[in-house]
Amino acid sequence: MTRESQATNKIVLIIEYDGTRYLGFQLQADVATVQGEMETALWKLTGKRTRVIAASRTDAGVHARGQVVSFLTESPLPPRTFVSGLNYYLPGDIAVRAAHRVDSSFNVRSDAIRREYSYFILNRRVRSPLKKGFVHHVSNRLDTEAMNEACRALVGEHDFSSFATGMETEIRRPVRTVYRAQVEKHGELAIFNMVANSFLRHQVRNTVGALIRVGLGRMKVAQFCDIIKAKQPGLAGPTAPACGLCLMHVDYEVPFGSEDENV
Amino acid sequence: MTRESQATNKIVLIIEYDGTRYLGFQLQADVATVQGEMETALWKLTGKRTRVIAASRTDAGVHARGQVVSFLTESPLPPRTFVSGLNYYLPGDIAVRAAHRVDSSFNVRSDAIRREYSYFILNRRVRSPLKKGFVHHVSNRLDTEAMNEACRALVGEHDFSSFATGMETEIRRPVRTVYRAQVEKHGELAIFNMVANSFLRHQVRNTVGALIRVGLGRMKVAQFCDIIKAKQPGLAGPTAPACGLCLMHVDYEVPFGSEDENV
Repeated sequence: MTRESQATNKIVLIIEYDGTRYLGFQLQADVATVQGEMETALWKLTGKRTRVIAASRTDAGVHARGQVVSFLTESPLPPRTFVSGLNYYLPGDIAVRAAHRVDSSFNVRSDAIRREYSYFILNRRVRSPLKKGFVHHVSNRLDTEAMNEACRALVGEHDFSSFATGMETEIRRPVRTVYRAQVEKHGELAIFNMVANSFLRHQVRNTVGALIRVGLGRMKVAQFCDIIKAKQPGLAGPTAPACGLCLMHVDYEVPFGSEDENV
Repeated sequence: MTRESQATNKIVLIIEYDGTRYLGFQLQADVATVQGEMETALWKLTGKRTRVIAASRTDAGVHARGQVVSFLTESPLPPRTFVSGLNYYLPGDIAVRAAHRVDSSFNVRSDAIRREYSYFILNRRVRSPLKKGFVHHVSNRLDTEAMNEACRALVGEHDFSSFATGMETEIRRPVRTVYRAQVEKHGELAIFNMVANSFLRHQVRNTVGALIRVGLGRMKVAQFCDIIKAKQPGLAGPTAPACGLCLMHVDYEVPFGSEDENV
């Protein structure tokens, strides 16, 4: 083993971000992305260019509370210094919540066993200035019982082709396992929570679009079930706005050790 | 009675706002204020200049979920049209939640019997991009039990001079009745809730500043009680940042009728 490879560490970070001003996680030329900001902050902290990989590539405008990213570094900094050091360089709409050193064989994407997303719907007559940018406003009353009845059809292993965007006429691996799909009322908020092994592109937002149709009485639960069975891209939807969506959590077989994220 | 006075209606509005970009509620020349935006929207809707009065004048950067304002108008529009019409003209960071026609003798300020404020403290190691602008971040662990012990000394009728800003060396009427003062933990949030007949300027923020000193172990509960007894402006504090504060609710002897604020 060369001296260089011995000194290379793999670090994972738990990060939170307000996705409003980003064109998604993934690096693109000349636009603001979360990956771009992370790589810039790492470069400032370590003096080296480093590639950052995410467990779940969030789309433009989508938020994250518990995104997991990884990178390789020769820096000898301890994980907790990556937390404070990166938070010093990152803009106010991105923060590192925790850092852990992991085995070099760890793959932040393929080793993830469950992803949890929440979609926040403001269900009241008028828009909310205090929740602007973090909820999708639906002014007519939603029947969350009907929505939950539809949700039950999502749980389990299914071909979710109908929940992919219409542009994708053919999806290579459309089968996913949904562990939880549920709508909870918290006052004027209706929060849709979905846990799966992984998700098709726009799957949560297309699911929410269809569930809102059910909640407004514009589609029967039986029709929602027919959409699942049809396996036809573009059938579910419309795609609910990005601002309501938040990546809450990514699970791995083995947790990242005991470092407490909170105080 | 003249024809004009017969046609004049008094309307109250329940409004919500993100106070971040405003120099407070009260109208000032050449700067953005909530009152200024409300009066501009009313002018656009009714074609007439109208003065808007608030139950509780919030300071620069302070938010509101349930501010109450009133104005006089000759417009025959029904209250619900004031809701939709004003929301059309108002910027995204201000919204009207409800409107009610009230008796001309009603005074939005002096008829208010209770004001409720909440102060949101994010108590975790790192800042939160998703709560930025709506919480005050305290990274060291707060002892909320000690804070609640101090809170109990606030309840009742007291001379709250020590909780006024230091600039005000003499306060004409410093006695207030506090009905509730309590800190509740909601995960990583510590929410301080305070209900009183009315408040001195900066009273909630100076109370929070002193309570945080108690929560961090930098001041004993007995010292907090001594501050109340001292009746000396500027003794409590430091004044906690405006962004954590939100006017939640204003109560009146008689509720504004049955129009539902929510869906």
